[in-house]
Amino acid sequence: MDREAIIESVKAQMPERRWLHVQGVMATSIILAERFGADPVRAELAAILHDVAKYWPTERMQRIIVDEQLPQELLAYDKELWHAPVGAFIAERDYGITDAEVLEAIRYHTSGREEMSLLEKIVCLADYMEPGRDFPGVNRIREEAEHSVEKALLAGFDSTISFLLEKEKRIFPLTVAARNAIIKQLREAEE
Amino acid sequence: MDREAIIESVKAQMPERRWLHVQGVMATSIILAERFGADPVRAELAAILHDVAKYWPTERMQRIIVDEQLPQELLAYDKELWHAPVGAFIAERDYGITDAEVLEAIRYHTSGREEMSLLEKIVCLADYMEPGRDFPGVNRIREEAEHSVEKALLAGFDSTISFLLEKEKRIFPLTVAARNAIIKQLREAEE
Repeated sequence: MDREAIIESVKAQMPERRWLHVQGVMATSIILAERFGADPVRAELAAILHDVAKYWPTERMQRIIVDEQLPQELLAYDKELWHAPVGAFIAERDYGITDAEVLEAIRYHTSGREEMSLLEKIVCLADYMEPGRDFPGVNRIREEAEHSVEKALLAGFDSTISFLLEKEKRIFPLTVAARNAIIKQLREAEE
Repeated sequence: MDREAIIESVKAQMPERRWLHVQGVMATSIILAERFGADPVRAELAAILHDVAKYWPTERMQRIIVDEQLPQELLAYDKELWHAPVGAFIAERDYGITDAEVLEAIRYHTSGREEMSLLEKIVCLADYMEPGRDFPGVNRIREEAEHSVEKALLAGFDSTISFLLEKEKRIFPLTVAARNAIIKQLREAEE
């Protein structure tokens, strides 16, 4: 399936306002990839597909998590997390994406994880800071992203964890692992 | 070793101001145990010993973590965490404590963990809220502790995680697991 066909198919699976968000993530992923030395074509491809399953019915995502043996612990956490690993599965099965880095960038765009590639960091960060986003702390994320993908992503994870603290919601362990790993990387870079 | 001898020995291993803190945790543990239906004698014993290794030199704690095969991942996190598992080891080896619940209450008093007994929760909570403590959020912890050990401990873990976010420090995974488990318990109790 070529880029235009993927775009048409993904667009058809979400409301118009969500497609505007995806376009923001696409544009931001390209900018960040060029700024930090990743491949903008692969960054954009991951961005196009990152929310493909976002508006699917919960039951449809749940069936895929169970039947396709995606990590079952997801089911114990917020449904907001489910569309990312389901999206990666769908990108491979239905859109024929074979590039493992692109698939991982889709899979971990919401939670992050301990060992993130530059492409994963960029798509995750673009999802936090695309121009349509507006939440406490988003401007700090954008400022940090002028210079450091790691510092910007740290600010992003901080905003997620602060939100979950405030709402008395559980914190997904992978997000803490991702934040801890980034702090370690930043400290090692300083030394 | 009887209670008085343990007290004299523990007191000798820390500065006077820290001993005042331990006395606060002892008194608060007894009050909380009586309030929530745990054994006040065992709660006080864990409280007496909880900070036994707090002022030991880092190298001495590190040697015990390595030589006695305590969880090695501790070494990758804040040294503030080390005295708790080291203290549990010392309570058993040097003070002859054999009560597993008392030992676990010492071991997890700083980090918490996923499956906490009532005694563990009480000592951890007493450590947050004893009368000498003064930090942002401590009064909310004390208010919640009038009615619910779980709600108070949740407020305590929230204050720890907020502090670590603000300081750009890593968050120990057990603390997140402890907080997630308490949220789950509170939700199930509401249903």
